[in-house]
Amino acid sequence: MFDLKAYLAEVRADVEESLRRCLGGPSPDTQLSRAMVYSVMAGGKRLRPVLCIAAAEAVGGRRDTVLPLACALELIHTYSLIHDDLPAMDDDKLRRGRPTCHVQFNEATAILAGDGLLTLAFEVLAAAGVQSGAGEKRSWLSVIALIAAGAGFRGMIEGQMRDMDFEGSVIAPTELESLHRLKTGKMIEISVGSGALVSGATTDQCQALHTYAQNIGLAFQVADDILNIRGDPQRMGKATGTDRSRGKNTYPSLLGLAGAEAFAAQLVNNALKALDTFDNKADCLRSIARYVIQRNR
Amino acid sequence: MFDLKAYLAEVRADVEESLRRCLGGPSPDTQLSRAMVYSVMAGGKRLRPVLCIAAAEAVGGRRDTVLPLACALELIHTYSLIHDDLPAMDDDKLRRGRPTCHVQFNEATAILAGDGLLTLAFEVLAAAGVQSGAGEKRSWLSVIALIAAGAGFRGMIEGQMRDMDFEGSVIAPTELESLHRLKTGKMIEISVGSGALVSGATTDQCQALHTYAQNIGLAFQVADDILNIRGDPQRMGKATGTDRSRGKNTYPSLLGLAGAEAFAAQLVNNALKALDTFDNKADCLRSIARYVIQRNR
Repeated sequence: MFDLKAYLAEVRADVEESLRRCLGGPSPDTQLSRAMVYSVMAGGKRLRPVLCIAAAEAVGGRRDTVLPLACALELIHTYSLIHDDLPAMDDDKLRRGRPTCHVQFNEATAILAGDGLLTLAFEVLAAAGVQSGAGEKRSWLSVIALIAAGAGFRGMIEGQMRDMDFEGSVIAPTELESLHRLKTGKMIEISVGSGALVSGATTDQCQALHTYAQNIGLAFQVADDILNIRGDPQRMGKATGTDRSRGKNTYPSLLGLAGAEAFAAQLVNNALKALDTFDNKADCLRSIARYVIQRNR
Repeated sequence: MFDLKAYLAEVRADVEESLRRCLGGPSPDTQLSRAMVYSVMAGGKRLRPVLCIAAAEAVGGRRDTVLPLACALELIHTYSLIHDDLPAMDDDKLRRGRPTCHVQFNEATAILAGDGLLTLAFEVLAAAGVQSGAGEKRSWLSVIALIAAGAGFRGMIEGQMRDMDFEGSVIAPTELESLHRLKTGKMIEISVGSGALVSGATTDQCQALHTYAQNIGLAFQVADDILNIRGDPQRMGKATGTDRSRGKNTYPSLLGLAGAEAFAAQLVNNALKALDTFDNKADCLRSIARYVIQRNR
């Protein structure tokens, strides 16, 4: 039986040590860097780094090779949270049990801290590429292009735009799915895909991992929607029931609570099936898939 | 006699065609992409692309090789203007004679449009790197790292942070210089340096161009400060006298108007001197240096 709890703790410790190194170094102690550290070091699941590293290890890659990539993904995720929380956007006051960046510092600092994290992600990626072997430089450039495209105005940023636009109006399940694919799904796919790519995965492996990631990404969103209704605000560090009061489109609102739970279970099964041809090095990925629906209980 | 006007018109046309291609392509017509195009296509001097291309040509490089780089620099510049104009930052309503992005669209769209342009810059750079020859991939990765570092929380973003922090308090000329070196100087240095690097410049050439860029960057800032006092609001497309009413630290406020003009002239002379060993392929760079103070008249 794979010990997911121990694996997650170990990977998170490695990622957080590496993140601290990215944010520290020769930088002076400024309000800007304090705001960046405040948001990055607020904890969280580190889902994207974990998926990136687990995918790399599933195809026989080395963790230290993909650590910069794992950090970059988390820096981009954190920037997107800071900007999404701003008063002009979702106007959230609490995140992971602590005041959001613009509440703790101020709005200008939060905007710039987000900008700083996004930019730092590409600095970390490019530096890893410069230090890689001659034969690996192309992979790193491809990964930078992939991440920039997925996080950009045709990907994640457009997802946030639609999420706000759709607030208060009822949309079809297919529209909701394409919204989430953009807003969170794409970066989860890229977390898995880039970890595999830099680790020399075969085309078949990449395709199977893509199917895994698509299903897992959507499953996480459905599970998040369910948690927003059934979760314990104390344990989650944020208010619950907020989606409903805001008129957000969610899976429970479209499919009912039981329907949403069945949909999440189906997605997890699809993800597990995609890994059929992988050996036990993919057990971390399998455990993560099961964890998605178990964390609701 | 080098025809700067014709050169600028020609380079700007090439850059704008290339920018349109970066922003268009397979992207749907969304409010987000419209906001991005609105701000990027608002005109402007295209100073960073021009300097990048002129530096490349001064060392014998090809324009089409550095065009993606020139575009990326302009995308980053435009993102920084959109975010700096936001109500939480400088709260500017007018830019290049037109409503700023958050006035024309809304605040959320402006934040996301800025994020989109910053991310697109790295997509464009990485795509150019992927397509480059095997021996040039390292240069492209170095340039991405250089740009990310210069535009990041130890560079341009920290400059904007300090610019806001210093408003309303009198600072020393050395502090003002280090502020401008961060806020605008660094990206001007990188525009020149990256154009040369990707074009295979020698170490000596890179050093001379670095001195040129440092002086030119500061000269532009001093000239901008002077224009804010003496410029014609109609011709500039924005209000003048705003620095003073806001308590901004400027060179005329620290050195007097005549002192600031003498300082700008000295900087331009330093820049020209740095190009002494270059042949007539550097005439574009020489003309740009002279233009910095001539545009005030």
